[in-house]
Amino acid sequence: MTVHRLADSFVDFRSDNTGAAAPEIVDALAAANSGTAAGYGNDRWTELVQRRFSELFEKDVQVFPVATGTAANALALASLSPPWGAVYCSPKAHIETSEANATGFFGAGVKLVLVEGDYGKIAAPALKTTLVATGIGQKHKSQPAALNLTQATDMGAVYRLDEVRALTELAHAYKMKVHMDGARFANALARLGCTPAEATWKAGVDVLSFGVTKNGGLLCDAIVVFSDGIAEPLAYHVRRAGQVWSKMRYAAAQLLAYVEDGLWLKNAARANALAQRIDSGLKALPGVKRAAPIEANEVFLELPPKVMDGMERDGIVFFRRAPTLGRFVCRFNGNEAEVDALLASLRRNLSAAA
Amino acid sequence: MTVHRLADSFVDFRSDNTGAAAPEIVDALAAANSGTAAGYGNDRWTELVQRRFSELFEKDVQVFPVATGTAANALALASLSPPWGAVYCSPKAHIETSEANATGFFGAGVKLVLVEGDYGKIAAPALKTTLVATGIGQKHKSQPAALNLTQATDMGAVYRLDEVRALTELAHAYKMKVHMDGARFANALARLGCTPAEATWKAGVDVLSFGVTKNGGLLCDAIVVFSDGIAEPLAYHVRRAGQVWSKMRYAAAQLLAYVEDGLWLKNAARANALAQRIDSGLKALPGVKRAAPIEANEVFLELPPKVMDGMERDGIVFFRRAPTLGRFVCRFNGNEAEVDALLASLRRNLSAAA
Amino acid sequence: MTVHRLADSFVDFRSDNTGAAAPEIVDALAAANSGTAAGYGNDRWTELVQRRFSELFEKDVQVFPVATGTAANALALASLSPPWGAVYCSPKAHIETSEANATGFFGAGVKLVLVEGDYGKIAAPALKTTLVATGIGQKHKSQPAALNLTQATDMGAVYRLDEVRALTELAHAYKMKVHMDGARFANALARLGCTPAEATWKAGVDVLSFGVTKNGGLLCDAIVVFSDGIAEPLAYHVRRAGQVWSKMRYAAAQLLAYVEDGLWLKNAARANALAQRIDSGLKALPGVKRAAPIEANEVFLELPPKVMDGMERDGIVFFRRAPTLGRFVCRFNGNEAEVDALLASLRRNLSAAA
Amino acid sequence: MTVHRLADSFVDFRSDNTGAAAPEIVDALAAANSGTAAGYGNDRWTELVQRRFSELFEKDVQVFPVATGTAANALALASLSPPWGAVYCSPKAHIETSEANATGFFGAGVKLVLVEGDYGKIAAPALKTTLVATGIGQKHKSQPAALNLTQATDMGAVYRLDEVRALTELAHAYKMKVHMDGARFANALARLGCTPAEATWKAGVDVLSFGVTKNGGLLCDAIVVFSDGIAEPLAYHVRRAGQVWSKMRYAAAQLLAYVEDGLWLKNAARANALAQRIDSGLKALPGVKRAAPIEANEVFLELPPKVMDGMERDGIVFFRRAPTLGRFVCRFNGNEAEVDALLASLRRNLSAAA
Repeated sequence: MTVHRLADSFVDFRSDNTGAAAPEIVDALAAANSGTAAGYGNDRWTELVQRRFSELFEKDVQVFPVATGTAANALALASLSPPWGAVYCSPKAHIETSEANATGFFGAGVKLVLVEGDYGKIAAPALKTTLVATGIGQKHKSQPAALNLTQATDMGAVYRLDEVRALTELAHAYKMKVHMDGARFANALARLGCTPAEATWKAGVDVLSFGVTKNGGLLCDAIVVFSDGIAEPLAYHVRRAGQVWSKMRYAAAQLLAYVEDGLWLKNAARANALAQRIDSGLKALPGVKRAAPIEANEVFLELPPKVMDGMERDGIVFFRRAPTLGRFVCRFNGNEAEVDALLASLRRNLSAAA
Repeated sequence: MTVHRLADSFVDFRSDNTGAAAPEIVDALAAANSGTAAGYGNDRWTELVQRRFSELFEKDVQVFPVATGTAANALALASLSPPWGAVYCSPKAHIETSEANATGFFGAGVKLVLVEGDYGKIAAPALKTTLVATGIGQKHKSQPAALNLTQATDMGAVYRLDEVRALTELAHAYKMKVHMDGARFANALARLGCTPAEATWKAGVDVLSFGVTKNGGLLCDAIVVFSDGIAEPLAYHVRRAGQVWSKMRYAAAQLLAYVEDGLWLKNAARANALAQRIDSGLKALPGVKRAAPIEANEVFLELPPKVMDGMERDGIVFFRRAPTLGRFVCRFNGNEAEVDALLASLRRNLSAAA
Repeated sequence: MTVHRLADSFVDFRSDNTGAAAPEIVDALAAANSGTAAGYGNDRWTELVQRRFSELFEKDVQVFPVATGTAANALALASLSPPWGAVYCSPKAHIETSEANATGFFGAGVKLVLVEGDYGKIAAPALKTTLVATGIGQKHKSQPAALNLTQATDMGAVYRLDEVRALTELAHAYKMKVHMDGARFANALARLGCTPAEATWKAGVDVLSFGVTKNGGLLCDAIVVFSDGIAEPLAYHVRRAGQVWSKMRYAAAQLLAYVEDGLWLKNAARANALAQRIDSGLKALPGVKRAAPIEANEVFLELPPKVMDGMERDGIVFFRRAPTLGRFVCRFNGNEAEVDALLASLRRNLSAAA
Repeated sequence: MTVHRLADSFVDFRSDNTGAAAPEIVDALAAANSGTAAGYGNDRWTELVQRRFSELFEKDVQVFPVATGTAANALALASLSPPWGAVYCSPKAHIETSEANATGFFGAGVKLVLVEGDYGKIAAPALKTTLVATGIGQKHKSQPAALNLTQATDMGAVYRLDEVRALTELAHAYKMKVHMDGARFANALARLGCTPAEATWKAGVDVLSFGVTKNGGLLCDAIVVFSDGIAEPLAYHVRRAGQVWSKMRYAAAQLLAYVEDGLWLKNAARANALAQRIDSGLKALPGVKRAAPIEANEVFLELPPKVMDGMERDGIVFFRRAPTLGRFVCRFNGNEAEVDALLASLRRNLSAAA
């Protein structure tokens, strides 16, 4: 993690987690701060979370608030796989690139198997090829256990529902379970325009990492369990993983505020719209290659190093994911002026480099 | 965890984690909610935590904010022990009774070895006896790795500094490291009247679980590392354990507010004073046996079940730790009237049972 | 493990694993050394083991040959417990005293809970008391998962069948599974005079560590699974634990020879008879206290250090388990002269010390 | 593992582990069966192994006999990597394809990272590219810990010494340790014609899995440690992994016989020579493509399914590694007639398919 030296005044496209939290969520947390409440989730806020999310997903779901997306992913996958199991994921997946072996840790040795596809997606034919060659039932082979789909993907693309269904059907045909890493689930939903149920269990998802932090939350994400047989053992695992707050109400209050009055979808729609504004602006800059379609709130651009140097000098801050790959993330509370500054800097530095 | 059916009006002595958070901490968290900040602890709040705690402990310490005390304990112990190591703890220790095998999980199979003592303490002679019989260097034996001291203990007692030193010297003589579970560290400090440094590294402690939640915090505790060679690998372990928030500033802000202007010690002193008020009141109730000396904010009383039944009917809520053992915890924001209600109910029900 | 400096001529009571292997077993291993055979247990010797053991136990059992008793125990227990589970065992149990945290390793953090009893046994009332206080379903508590019984015990005693049944019924009432550590199972069987079935699954045992090494084997023990739902996942776990030999036939041949024509019971009966000869000899030495009844092939005697010093000078080698506790183990291929030498040395040194 | 239905008379090229053991090794094992010996490796055979291997490798090495190659690999790698470490290996490596997540299990979550190269080798430039992009010191990334080289490779090729050195230098430059999986180390050595020292520590190898089973052994392989700081903790890990036999002398005797009078190299040379006979025979069959150069005792051929069907009907048994890839392994005790039968069948079926 390179810490960029920031100009006095700069425009921040580093990440959705560099941003502030939604004031509604902070207010709700503060409002929960009165009176006593039973510990470890036996409080009325957490009870309400279970009800509210069950309404939201049109199904009796079990919700486990946890501190981070890494915890959500690793606990979810550990709940789906025996220690000798294999989890299939994209080479771009957060669990592969950015979680410091958390899946192996929580899963007592569970292995990640990489499956190719475009833009951080898994391609169904590639998954099929991998599964066919897997050696089902062979005791010396890690056995297919779970499929990990990141929605939106780590390249800013969004799986269409038919793509999700094709993958989950294949997974289930091999008796695997399906985990959706929804660190940017709201952004995907805003893009797809479907219901939360349609995007998840109706499309074959068994467990969802429900991201909050990147879209206006602060200290809490959640695991949402759709399928049977998962939640009961998971309730022990979250506890032994140190992921159950004794003062759970302050986490539950965040989750409640996040989904209250559609805040999560409003936030996501705003962030996506800013990314779309970049997308539109790029049409006037034909030399710039998008590394993936811009479908959520992340923009990946292939840019010469000199152009990125110049943009940084202009006070545009962002992450360089490779020598010629820049990532620009739009936050729910970003604004059009920031996008326009980004586009102007990009234009200027492209001209200079030409 | 039995969820008590609470009367409309009740007096809550269940736990320090059933209470609200200190408004100063909630305010600080809200105040951090402005502008952008680098993720994962590369922000100025977290940097300030490192400085502020180093001043507080009169030593360059490394601070790892984590979500829960269980995470703090298990990560700290895993940083001190190889997988074939043994952690020595009291049979009353939280890591033994209440953390769902977290030490074994984070430590890849690390084992707890129970050592007796009074009131949740470990007695130095008992530790010595255990160590002598341990089989140092014998490959089929778990090897002494870490000593776990809970300060204040899980029975509400407080180790004197000479007791701590005797134990840590013994531990170090056996090449063990020392972990202090300070879930109620502030309460112990308020009792001891010594400096944080005197209570920890000057007394031989290598790593501290620095409790915040029970004394006015909400969603954050911390690991404080005093000794060399521990922090660098731990920095990876906290990350793979899903215990590093991307929006770390909201955790760091809690820690800063907690120690600002001695808030933590003021809170602890108030909770301790309420427990002392119970202690004083018990002098007029000679039939009641304290299960441990009342030295912090917890009160353990041996009581007939009928007396406890009656108290619950009176609206006094608390935890029954055994058929004839009740635990009453004083919160930093409890008050004298609550204590007096407790004492009155106790007196009334003792008379009725007599 | 102290390596005793041995006299030129000495009498060896150190352990049953210091002895040579039964020639029948070595011969069988050598006889298997012809032609080719499919690897990893897909050979006719291993197939025959499954059949032969199923006849022996009067039930379709699954047998997993493994390298050591530690592997057998740890894999068996891991197959019975989730990572947050508790395994109940005696403080004298081999899994507690002598396996270097193997249970925690194979079980991803599984915890041992010690339950008292006489002579290395678990007492049913003590188990009941522990279970009642356990906190079933409480997420912060390790949950009862498996009961570990060592038969014969690590103190040389043998559970009566009614004792076993009382314990397994209690365990099953709490939805636990039962593992029998049968490192000296043959010695127990020889003592009890019952069938293998009566000693195990008919008495409520779910999985057995079937000891071979201590009773004439050399490089192979086995796990025998009686109950459903255990063998299939275990088949993966043994493989990932590096406990499946590619040339399995040489392990299977050992197991076949071990049970052929009752060799195992003959060997055990001889070792037990030697221990009984010591027991008888002790009647003439009223000052010597047996630490446990002598019911299998191990003898534990409380002896003054000077007496043990003298015996060692006499060339009697054995293990000192504590400053005043000596362990003397009779091997299947020991003889009466050795026992008589032991008794003579004991008599002489007791007189000298008197 | 498909169990082939074998013809009454067949020629076995399935694996080197389907073969019988070298009679010298079985004889040595039987010869060890006399008298008593201290357990768990404190015997004179095991002591002699340490000495004999130190002579063989021209260095004070530590040898850990273990049951299987999987155990050797996984324990060796766990001794080189923290749980958040990455082990770099070929996609063809046994640890990746055939050990059921053992590396993750023994290493508490250690991750395998695949690096391309020809014929089961790792290509130094590919390793360099991977390491450059790794994110050294970034806490959310698994950190480079160990390089795994299979010698001979799992495709039957052999690294030249300069290739090994280029890779180990690169690894050490990144502060990684190097593990050589020598399941077929003798075959590689026979090919290279160098000393054991030159092939290992003099070329930068820190730990070697010393394969015995595939080249005439039966129930024992070994870990050989060259570098400092590894053996001491490993001594505990092998014990808690259930990989230390109490009657260790029977394992040590195998290792001694294996290297006595160069038996291991004679065996390997014979197996290699049979593979060379196939290689020569293939020159007359220009349509057959070798999937890798034939440099040890394994032959991988790209063949149409119909040809492989026909060969099986002819009684040639082997493993189909993919629909058009057959693996033929030459055993140390195979013979020229078998090779000639293989070549004849191949020729016949190729003609039939043409």
